[in-house]
Amino acid sequence: MSALTDLYAAAKEVALLNSMESALGWDQETYMPSKAIETRASQLSWLSTQAHKMATGARTGKLIDAAEKERPRGVKDAANLREMRRQYERASCLPSKLVAEESIAASRGKAAWADARKHSDFATFAPHLEKLLTIARKKADLWGWKEEPYDALLENYERGAKTSEVAVVFDRLKPELVKTAKAAVEASVGCPKSLLRGKYPIEKQQQLNREIAGSIGFDFDAGRIDTTTHPFCTELGPGDVRLTTRYDERDFLSSLFGVLHETGHGLYEQGLPHEDFGLPSGRAVSLGIHESQSRLWENHVGRSRPFWEKWLPRAAEIFPNLRKVSLDDFMSVVNCAEFSFIRVEADEATYDLHILLRFELERRMLNGELAVKDIPAAWNDSFRALFGRTPPDDARGCLQDIHWSMGGLGYFATYTLGNLNAAQLFAAAKKQRKIANGIAKAEYEPLLTWLRAHIHERGGVLLPQQLITDATGFPTDPKWHLRHLRERFLK
Amino acid sequence: MSALTDLYAAAKEVALLNSMESALGWDQETYMPSKAIETRASQLSWLSTQAHKMATGARTGKLIDAAEKERPRGVKDAANLREMRRQYERASCLPSKLVAEESIAASRGKAAWADARKHSDFATFAPHLEKLLTIARKKADLWGWKEEPYDALLENYERGAKTSEVAVVFDRLKPELVKTAKAAVEASVGCPKSLLRGKYPIEKQQQLNREIAGSIGFDFDAGRIDTTTHPFCTELGPGDVRLTTRYDERDFLSSLFGVLHETGHGLYEQGLPHEDFGLPSGRAVSLGIHESQSRLWENHVGRSRPFWEKWLPRAAEIFPNLRKVSLDDFMSVVNCAEFSFIRVEADEATYDLHILLRFELERRMLNGELAVKDIPAAWNDSFRALFGRTPPDDARGCLQDIHWSMGGLGYFATYTLGNLNAAQLFAAAKKQRKIANGIAKAEYEPLLTWLRAHIHERGGVLLPQQLITDATGFPTDPKWHLRHLRERFLK
Repeated sequence: MSALTDLYAAAKEVALLNSMESALGWDQETYMPSKAIETRASQLSWLSTQAHKMATGARTGKLIDAAEKERPRGVKDAANLREMRRQYERASCLPSKLVAEESIAASRGKAAWADARKHSDFATFAPHLEKLLTIARKKADLWGWKEEPYDALLENYERGAKTSEVAVVFDRLKPELVKTAKAAVEASVGCPKSLLRGKYPIEKQQQLNREIAGSIGFDFDAGRIDTTTHPFCTELGPGDVRLTTRYDERDFLSSLFGVLHETGHGLYEQGLPHEDFGLPSGRAVSLGIHESQSRLWENHVGRSRPFWEKWLPRAAEIFPNLRKVSLDDFMSVVNCAEFSFIRVEADEATYDLHILLRFELERRMLNGELAVKDIPAAWNDSFRALFGRTPPDDARGCLQDIHWSMGGLGYFATYTLGNLNAAQLFAAAKKQRKIANGIAKAEYEPLLTWLRAHIHERGGVLLPQQLITDATGFPTDPKWHLRHLRERFLK
Repeated sequence: MSALTDLYAAAKEVALLNSMESALGWDQETYMPSKAIETRASQLSWLSTQAHKMATGARTGKLIDAAEKERPRGVKDAANLREMRRQYERASCLPSKLVAEESIAASRGKAAWADARKHSDFATFAPHLEKLLTIARKKADLWGWKEEPYDALLENYERGAKTSEVAVVFDRLKPELVKTAKAAVEASVGCPKSLLRGKYPIEKQQQLNREIAGSIGFDFDAGRIDTTTHPFCTELGPGDVRLTTRYDERDFLSSLFGVLHETGHGLYEQGLPHEDFGLPSGRAVSLGIHESQSRLWENHVGRSRPFWEKWLPRAAEIFPNLRKVSLDDFMSVVNCAEFSFIRVEADEATYDLHILLRFELERRMLNGELAVKDIPAAWNDSFRALFGRTPPDDARGCLQDIHWSMGGLGYFATYTLGNLNAAQLFAAAKKQRKIANGIAKAEYEPLLTWLRAHIHERGGVLLPQQLITDATGFPTDPKWHLRHLRERFLK
């Protein structure tokens, strides 16, 4: 037995603990009764503490040392060893006590956030956020950073990315985006939304969503769709990808695009090399790549005309009130741009404005330039500057997202990276005639095959920017996304 | 800090691991997609191995030794220490490898059983049962037994019970029961079952079941009801009791009595002293007591006339086809006795015949007198002797129950002990005027209060036979159950 083999076995055991955390976390969001919260917090804390202990234990360190000294190996093993060394160093910086503290703070924070959001009461959530922010700063300091603490957190989600480099990309995006978004909103005035007014029973929405998710390749023997307040996709281990969505009886498109989005995430997870479960080579490489998969299927596929040429007739079978709606009218509703208070309800044209706002606020929070108590006001000021309107309450302002309540600071930037990557990947894939022909007929197997080969099956062997460059010829660049938005909204 | 305090903390950690196993086990039965089975089996095996290691580790042994030497303590601490010593000795007999092997065999066994049952194909399940039986025998030998191996397994479920003593009680029950069951079936000929024919939409069944479970005291903020093939109740920790049931669109009573049954289990779990979670004093004392709670609510409450005086009008609001059914007719249907092939569908009058059959078969399997391959024939022979009919296939014969597929050998006897205890407890409680008056008006708070005080809140401090004697004045005796059956079916 080589040290590398032993190291892999140890990593797989840690992954098994993480997968249990995912399973219990999924249950907490979907089905767990409210009085179970304290026990669940203890369970999750135990698992994360244990996983942390194992991942950072002396044995792991020695195995990595020994594996590094073994004879040269292939690209995949080299990448795994590189990433495991790095994870080990990062994880070893954090004392177990802090990890346990964070897990409990996140469990409580999520519960407090759900309540605060319901009553639009930022004050009841503030102490939890204060606690989580303190922990996040402590972690950033322990991991170390050169330019700003945000770097150390962003690295969690987007391996190899620097905040200042992301800011450069975002700064190139911002002026064009503000113009495009404004023009798109103006061009959408009078879009015939009222044509879709009606009652869409939840079971029928579920039926249609299931058909669509299955038709683009989601394997329901290896996954499922449930209902939550805040939709997400989580992998509970190989063969077990759980998507969630939420339903609005008056608007079937809200759950449908939610499901398409999460299905994009799910296809990535289902396409990872399962034999490498627990190793970097068997894992999604970054959130900015993950989000490219969800946005590609949600927006580039799901809001395209060929997609609805196929699916509108089927939707009209299920929802008879759609029978009177023409494809042209339907497409203007599907691609109607409006300024919205809520990020997850935002259309493509305005979505990234929401992210730019959060990215800036988070940087200031972490730099100590913005206190927790001042967040609601800062949020509303920034929102006014970008959208020209003020959120009517914090539920539709700074309380709308779950991320901070889970300690997920440094995460939001990856949404816009995802949008940019999605446009870039879709443009690259379409250069192949077979894929372009498929897309024109709403047949997506060639596209999925391309994504499997260029993204999913490659796991975390390359760094995100290497992967996107390998697949498309360029590192992440806003030009394809801006081009796509102009074509979709301004033609 | 005393050794006892440390011992309690260690026990609570083991309980936390067990509660995660319950949570993942619940998910496996309710929502898990099929391709997740291997990962789930690894997760469950890891948890049970880890819990076993902790429970049997040298540290636990030393803490028990030290705690036993500490100054005298109260009844509860003494009982906890007594039970923990005993659990430790029993758990220490089992090598970790065998525990892991059993967990994997049980995960696979359950999946194979579900499939075998679907296709009524005993042969595909037989190798799994063979494996599980071998493990069960190995465990019995490791634990040690004097009279027969069944003793060592029964002790898992019914603390302090001896197989030969249970057999004495069952032998007193059997001749009377065979007579009573036969008479009850004859008396039920012509019961107007067809009056209830109709379609009962599942969502409406769920609504009624929920109302009823809530009205008898089930706390839905600390529990929930889901759907599975084989109904069960499991506690995922304090404040988290999960019931399951199955639905038949043509028969709302099947899910309703299933829910009443599981609610009885759930009320017991919800009524345990949560501050003692993880300690014997915070745990249900035995399955024979657990089953007394489910059967009490299902049969003594749920099949009584006062119960339906209250609930039939409500049921008729929800299911209009019941409006034409009189209470008299309804009661004859609810208490109609018939010979059935399926234990879980059996009525009260014939139910225990199913248990006597399984008890006898299991004893023979464990004594090595009955080979796995001969089980279908032996089952059918016994069934014919007791019921005068032959099961049409193994799905309705020896494949009907999940227990063996999970390695649950030695378990069945507790069902009949539960029936006997239920009748005995109900008779004792009714001696209090307030309780009897409540029952007559279908108001069960006084009854639940009595059960909380005499059973639920007492946890596992007393042995089951001490507990039942304390509550009713007598150890378990078949006479109340037989009296109840005669009154219900032969009057």
